[in-house]
Amino acid sequence: MKNRVNYGFLKVSSLRQFSSSINHPTIYFTGIQPTGIPHLGNFFGSIDPWIDLQNSVNPEIQMMLSVVDQHAISLGPLPADQLRRNTRQMTASLIACGVDPSRTLLFRQSDIPQIAQLSWILGSLQTTSKLARLPQYKEKQERFKKGDIPVGLLTYPLLQAADVLTFKATTVPVGEDQSQHLNLLGGLAYAFNKTYQTDVFPIPKQLTREKNARIRSLREPEKKMSKSSGGPRSRIEITDSRETIIEKCQKAQSDTAGAVTYDKENRLAVSNLLDLYSAITKTSLSEIDYSSWSTLDLKMNLAEKIDNRLAPIREKFEELENSEEIDKILERNGDAAREIAEKNLREIRRIVGFL
Amino acid sequence: MKNRVNYGFLKVSSLRQFSSSINHPTIYFTGIQPTGIPHLGNFFGSIDPWIDLQNSVNPEIQMMLSVVDQHAISLGPLPADQLRRNTRQMTASLIACGVDPSRTLLFRQSDIPQIAQLSWILGSLQTTSKLARLPQYKEKQERFKKGDIPVGLLTYPLLQAADVLTFKATTVPVGEDQSQHLNLLGGLAYAFNKTYQTDVFPIPKQLTREKNARIRSLREPEKKMSKSSGGPRSRIEITDSRETIIEKCQKAQSDTAGAVTYDKENRLAVSNLLDLYSAITKTSLSEIDYSSWSTLDLKMNLAEKIDNRLAPIREKFEELENSEEIDKILERNGDAAREIAEKNLREIRRIVGFL
Repeated sequence: MKNRVNYGFLKVSSLRQFSSSINHPTIYFTGIQPTGIPHLGNFFGSIDPWIDLQNSVNPEIQMMLSVVDQHAISLGPLPADQLRRNTRQMTASLIACGVDPSRTLLFRQSDIPQIAQLSWILGSLQTTSKLARLPQYKEKQERFKKGDIPVGLLTYPLLQAADVLTFKATTVPVGEDQSQHLNLLGGLAYAFNKTYQTDVFPIPKQLTREKNARIRSLREPEKKMSKSSGGPRSRIEITDSRETIIEKCQKAQSDTAGAVTYDKENRLAVSNLLDLYSAITKTSLSEIDYSSWSTLDLKMNLAEKIDNRLAPIREKFEELENSEEIDKILERNGDAAREIAEKNLREIRRIVGFL
Repeated sequence: MKNRVNYGFLKVSSLRQFSSSINHPTIYFTGIQPTGIPHLGNFFGSIDPWIDLQNSVNPEIQMMLSVVDQHAISLGPLPADQLRRNTRQMTASLIACGVDPSRTLLFRQSDIPQIAQLSWILGSLQTTSKLARLPQYKEKQERFKKGDIPVGLLTYPLLQAADVLTFKATTVPVGEDQSQHLNLLGGLAYAFNKTYQTDVFPIPKQLTREKNARIRSLREPEKKMSKSSGGPRSRIEITDSRETIIEKCQKAQSDTAGAVTYDKENRLAVSNLLDLYSAITKTSLSEIDYSSWSTLDLKMNLAEKIDNRLAPIREKFEELENSEEIDKILERNGDAAREIAEKNLREIRRIVGFL
């Protein structure tokens, strides 16, 4: 089990006790926001776990990964060039990191208009107050003046549910912060099945890595690594150059104690660097011999390991970013995903009485 | 101008002063709820005006009429068989009444998944409180317990806007009660154009017949003729048999005065029957010589005229209702409408940054 200690165990949490009475073929689905080039927080939070699954589950299991560009405008429009570039960079990054588009059906959400259609159908089974009680709604609405709340902030969990249910996905690998939305999604699938006396939807299960690495900001380790706050030195992006990686590691927050110890309570910054070292080398903490390291040694060793792991990703990304291959993959996979969506929506429309 | 006095004059009300700087080809669009077999209130409220337009406007003008089945579940699911039958009956009724599917692109909303997709995009430009301020929302939400409000009640004006804008329709023939929604729709088209610095959307204009016949309930003439209240004797459906029409006219509310006079203030029931006589015969009130009629004469003459007008409609409906022709028309027109929607959404997705 060497090298895999932190990553080998998956927890399948069935959020609802009910399940449908027919066996649906196993389909893994997750969505990822087109935020441009991912940082190591994104990498260890969702990309690396997906690739682990892709490379380990039964080859008969369908794997679907959606770059959810429609979600990117939930809170309002973005500059079109930025959104377009972000989607392209995220797609190229995913492939560069190891998503295999011949194994994972990697597609762009907006290529599948049926998803929004199903979202409307699911909305007929939901109330506004249920959506308004979701923790993420409550938290985010505070950013807006009263009355200024974008419709998408209220309704995006319906679109998320439709993302999954359009493809009758059974298994949704996402972080623990998505539990409430998975619960809503399971509830909607159940409500639909019950209302229409059907088994059309599986009740999807959440899949979360038991010991997923939570990478923290290099500058403010009490916060998680983030694209939207903390400045560029707080995060390492997967395409950062060797020089940039070294510089960011050198300037990462640490403390004045000379030796390296793992102590999350009193030495959060140094412990975060060790967690990152463990994650990037796929080695458990107990197997890392840092007894003789100074904090500077830790930083320089860490930079070396990050660069080792990112070098081929960086190279592949550069090759892909402006290539026609990305367009071809998105087009081909969009067609394939749409074919599934059309078939499923035809079935769903019959059930609802549209056909 | 005989026979057309009440119907010849159309009022084009530009609800917004702004307009886009390019000329969009004129496209007429309206949506009609699949409520099954229409009554004379529906007939004179929306079907007959549409047919008048269809048969009088420049043949180069595109005419689109959508049976909006997705709207039918805005407030919650319906029994699927009922919805399916209602959509079929409405489609057959429209054609029986004179909608010419080779001139009017008559299609089923749910055949066009792009409409829901555009609705999501438009939602990114709208706030929940703006939607909650619409009069129809305020009025209808009272039917629900606080907290029990279906999502569709809040968001259906976005779907309505998308119905129109998916096809870049310029002109929307609807009743005056839709002014607020047309205003919202114009505002969204404008906001989209402004946000993305584009002219992609026309600002659609509302078109309302100046002297549209407002048909009232035969039993409670203070209310309008309605499917959902008043019982079957309060309304005449377009497929009612001659016997049923005579019976309903005989039992229509009138008053004890023997002679017929038109006096909406003091003799609403009798005036309503005269309005209906005027509408069904396409004759202005001043041209109807009712000086010698008793109220019973009015009722019997009215029944005769209604039967004369509905007989061919009834016959055509019976021929169509269970025919394969309906399926073929919906399929062919669905394909044609989707082709337009796909082209337009591709353009819109480029503008938003999805492509």
